Amino acid sequence: MIIVRGGVTTPKGFLANGIKAGLKKSGNPDLALIYSETPAVAAGIFTTNVFKASPVKLSMANLRNETHQAIVVNSGNANCANGRQGDADALLMAGYIAKGMGLGRSEVLLASTGIIGHRLPVRKIEIKVPELILGLSAKGGSDLAGAIMTTDTVKKEIAVKIKLGGVVVTIGGAAKGVGMIHPLMKKAARHATMLGFVTTDVSISKAMLEKALSDAADSSFNMISVDGDMSTNDSLFIMANGLAGNRKITESGKDYKIFLEALKGLCAALAKMLAADGEGATKLVEIKVVGAHTEKKAGVIARKISTSNLLKCAIFGEDPNWGRIAASAGSAGVDFDPTKTDIYIGTAKVLSGGSSMKTFDKEKVRKLIKGKEVFLKVDLKEGKGSATAWTCDFSKEYVVINSEYST
Amino acid sequence: MIIVRGGVTTPKGFLANGIKAGLKKSGNPDLALIYSETPAVAAGIFTTNVFKASPVKLSMANLRNETHQAIVVNSGNANCANGRQGDADALLMAGYIAKGMGLGRSEVLLASTGIIGHRLPVRKIEIKVPELILGLSAKGGSDLAGAIMTTDTVKKEIAVKIKLGGVVVTIGGAAKGVGMIHPLMKKAARHATMLGFVTTDVSISKAMLEKALSDAADSSFNMISVDGDMSTNDSLFIMANGLAGNRKITESGKDYKIFLEALKGLCAALAKMLAADGEGATKLVEIKVVGAHTEKKAGVIARKISTSNLLKCAIFGEDPNWGRIAASAGSAGVDFDPTKTDIYIGTAKVLSGGSSMKTFDKEKVRKLIKGKEVFLKVDLKEGKGSATAWTCDFSKEYVVINSEYST
Repeated sequence: MIIVRGGVTTPKGFLANGIKAGLKKSGNPDLALIYSETPAVAAGIFTTNVFKASPVKLSMANLRNETHQAIVVNSGNANCANGRQGDADALLMAGYIAKGMGLGRSEVLLASTGIIGHRLPVRKIEIKVPELILGLSAKGGSDLAGAIMTTDTVKKEIAVKIKLGGVVVTIGGAAKGVGMIHPLMKKAARHATMLGFVTTDVSISKAMLEKALSDAADSSFNMISVDGDMSTNDSLFIMANGLAGNRKITESGKDYKIFLEALKGLCAALAKMLAADGEGATKLVEIKVVGAHTEKKAGVIARKISTSNLLKCAIFGEDPNWGRIAASAGSAGVDFDPTKTDIYIGTAKVLSGGSSMKTFDKEKVRKLIKGKEVFLKVDLKEGKGSATAWTCDFSKEYVVINSEYST
Repeated sequence: MIIVRGGVTTPKGFLANGIKAGLKKSGNPDLALIYSETPAVAAGIFTTNVFKASPVKLSMANLRNETHQAIVVNSGNANCANGRQGDADALLMAGYIAKGMGLGRSEVLLASTGIIGHRLPVRKIEIKVPELILGLSAKGGSDLAGAIMTTDTVKKEIAVKIKLGGVVVTIGGAAKGVGMIHPLMKKAARHATMLGFVTTDVSISKAMLEKALSDAADSSFNMISVDGDMSTNDSLFIMANGLAGNRKITESGKDYKIFLEALKGLCAALAKMLAADGEGATKLVEIKVVGAHTEKKAGVIARKISTSNLLKCAIFGEDPNWGRIAASAGSAGVDFDPTKTDIYIGTAKVLSGGSSMKTFDKEKVRKLIKGKEVFLKVDLKEGKGSATAWTCDFSKEYVVINSEYST
C-alpha cells in the first residue's frame, strides 16, 4: 500500500464539488456532491443513536438499491429532530440531485451535519443544485473536503494505491468532524457527527464491500473520541465503481485481504486526522491496550481511557498524572488483575505490576508528553488481545467553542 | 422529616475532629476522625473500580466485624497504586487510631482522597494522632467536613430528624468530592473519589443498615456526575449507635420505611451539594427522565445525559442548544421511540413527539437557564418509570483546575 496526495476524486471515474449555499452563518462552503460516472456498488454504516437524523434514515433505506452514483452532503444543519418535515426535506434534497442528474431517487445517498432541530432550508439548496452539478470535476475532491467542514480547522483527505493481480487499485477518502465525536456506527445502528466518504475504483461485490467497510470502521472511526458525545448524524459511505479493472472480489481471499488492509489504513489515517483536529485540541493522543484476553476487551478499555476528561486535561497541561490512566482503565466495566498491570507514557514505564515506579522520573515523562503526539500504553499481561484508540487533549478552547455554538 | 443545621456530630454519641497533618501542599486541614462513644453497627459501599485504593480494600475487609467505633480519613493522598506498601500503610494508619483509642484494629474504618501513586506519608499521620484524638468533640462535625475537602470550595454537611414510635432519631452526614466524580458504589464494587460519612443514633440491625445504605446511594450519590471519571477511592460509610432508644429496626416495616426515606433525603441533599460544587461549576443541573418503561431505564438515560460534555458546555454558555439533550438521550444504549419523546428546559417544551417546537421561544428558554439551577426533563411517554440525575455545567475553569493538578 502506498499513500498518495489525494482524496475522493483520486480513484478513476469519480467527480466531486463543494460550494456555498448559505446554510452556514459564516458564509463558508456548505454543500457538496460526489459522483461516480458509472453505476457503483455502495455501502454505509450509521450512528447507533435512537435519534437518527432524517438523511441517515433515508440513506439507510436507499442503500437497499443495488447501485448508486451520487452522495450529496450539507454542513450547517443536521436535519435532525424535525419530525416528518425533516424526512420530507431529506427526500426533497435527494430528489433535486436525482432530477438534475437523471438518476433514480434511491441511487442518491445523503448526509447532513450541523445544528439539531432547525428546519433544513431546502429552497437554498434547490437553487444551488445546478451550480453544484455543473461544477463537478475530477479535481473537486478538495472542494468537497472543505464544504463538509463544521468546526474543523483543516481539511481531511487522503488516497492510497494497492495492486491486485497486477492491476493498480485506488482508494480515496475525506472526512469531517471534530466535535460530538464518539462514533459507534453499525449497519443498522443508532447515533455520532462524523462524516466519512470513501471512493474506490476496485471491482467488488456489494456484499464484500459492506463487510470491508464494517471491519475497517471498527478499528478506525469507531475507535476515536473527541468528547464522548455520540451524534445523531454519523455516517460513513463507500462507493466502488469497478473501473480499475481488477478481477472482481466476491469472497474472502488474498485480494480481499489486501483491499481490506488498505481500507483499514486509509480509515485509520482519516480517523487520526479527526482526533488530532478535535475541538480545541493541541495534541493527538494514542492509547494502546495490550496483553488482554481478547481484542474486544482491549478495545473496551482503550476506548474508556480515551473519554477521560481528567486525563485529557492533564495532557493539555503536559502533566504526567498517570494515576488518571489507571483510574480510567479500572472503570471500564471489565475485570482484570490490577496487580499485574503496567502503564507506559511514551517509552517510560510509570506503573509496574499495579504499583507506582519508585524510579519514576517526572521530568523525563514530562518531556515525553510535550510533543504534538502522546502515546500511552496499558499492558494487562493476561493474554494477546490488543486495540488502539485515539483522542485529543482537552483545552479551555473546547469549552469556549461549545458554550457558544448555537447562538 | 425535618432538616436541621448540623453534620456527623448532630446524632447522639458521635464526636469528630479535623486537623492539619501536612499532607496537603496548601497546608489546609487534611486528617479527620469520626468516633462513636458506644459500639455502633456500620455499613459501607465502595467504588466499582478494578484499581481499588488500599484504604478501600482494608475498609471492605474490616466491615466484616460486627461493630465499629471510628472512621479515620485523610485528604491530599489517595494511597492508591502503591502496591503492598500501600496496603501496609493503610494498616498502619488504622493501627495508630486503634492503639490510641483502645479499639480493635478491625473496629476502625478508613478513607483516603488525593493524588494517586504517591506513598502515604504515614509518619506525618502518626505524630498527629494524639492531637486528632484529644481534639474530638461533639461540635467537631464541621471540622471533619473541612478536613476532607480537596478541590471543594464549600463544606458539605447536613442533618435530619425523624420520629420512630414517638422517639426522635437523628441522622447526620458530611461529604466531599468535586472532581473525578461519577460514582457507582456497590457493596463489593470497583471505582470514583467522593467520600460520604453518615452517622445516626437510630437502633437498627447491621443487615438492615446495609440494605438502607445501598438503596439510598442508588438514588443519590450513584446518580451524580461531575466529569464522568470514576475514582479509585469512592467510599460511603454509615454508623448507627442506637442511642436514640427507638425499638430496634430488624426488618422492612413502617419504621424502616421512615428511616430509609430520611436517609434518602439526606443523601440526595449531600449529593446535590457535591454536584453544585463540581470543579469549575457555575450551575447545578437536574435531569429528570420520566415516562420510561422502568425506573432502571430512566436512570440509564438520565445518567447518560449528565455526562454530556457538549450539553454541559452549552449550559455554561447559557445557550438553549437542546439538540444536545436529544443526542445524548439517544446514545444511552437503550431503545425508545424518538417520535414520542418530549423534552423540556425548565417549564418550556422544546421537543414535542420527537420534533422541534415551532413555537420554541429562544429568549424565554434562555431566561430559564440563566439561574443557578437548571432543570431538564425528558418524557419518553412509554410507561411510568422515572429517575433523576444531577450534574453541573462545564466551564473553562474545570480545564484550568485539572491541567495543573499534580504539579
